[in-house]
Amino acid sequence: MEQLSKLSCEACDVGAKLLTSSQIESLMPQVSGWEIIIDSDIQKLKQQFTTKNYTKSMSFTNAIAKLADSVNHHPLIIVEYSTVTVIWWSHKLKGLHKNDFIMAAKTSERF
Amino acid sequence: MEQLSKLSCEACDVGAKLLTSSQIESLMPQVSGWEIIIDSDIQKLKQQFTTKNYTKSMSFTNAIAKLADSVNHHPLIIVEYSTVTVIWWSHKLKGLHKNDFIMAAKTSERF
Repeated sequence: MEQLSKLSCEACDVGAKLLTSSQIESLMPQVSGWEIIIDSDIQKLKQQFTTKNYTKSMSFTNAIAKLADSVNHHPLIIVEYSTVTVIWWSHKLKGLHKNDFIMAAKTSERF
Repeated sequence: MEQLSKLSCEACDVGAKLLTSSQIESLMPQVSGWEIIIDSDIQKLKQQFTTKNYTKSMSFTNAIAKLADSVNHHPLIIVEYSTVTVIWWSHKLKGLHKNDFIMAAKTSERF
């Protein structure tokens, strides 16, 4: 099986489609610790990471931001003292694209 | 009237007390754009700042983080592409201390 964290995030062109339920089901084992949430009818991938302190939280946040900027695909990040919560979804598609799983896998690698 | 953004955040020692409703009412005019929210029965100060882009969002987030670390009082920060939402409250007191208004004023100054 292709390793998600090694794949590149593709541009979501016109015609890009949301993942089907079965596609999501087959990708979930590759993003350990991530859960699917439904927020305003939009499926999203979420994980809360626990860090040792604020310095670690901010360095992780900046690593995610750098990753996000490199592919122009940006998550929602919630930073608190010792937690960083990351939520990925495809804004234009209003749901989950394979890109979001790729970015979730790459996020976990940076933790 | 003392300018909040010029004051120092004091350590919340044992005995530190939550602000009263009238104290909050008198401080609110000094933190323009901030609103009081109630989250799990806890009063908090919140503002969503709109930025030009992700670079601006992250530089503002890092400025807040530096400010927070300088006084060991940390907010919740939600970073999206062009918005940064900041929420201040005193965790130990489970509500609002004057420190939170000082930090809100200092946050606005850094925007």
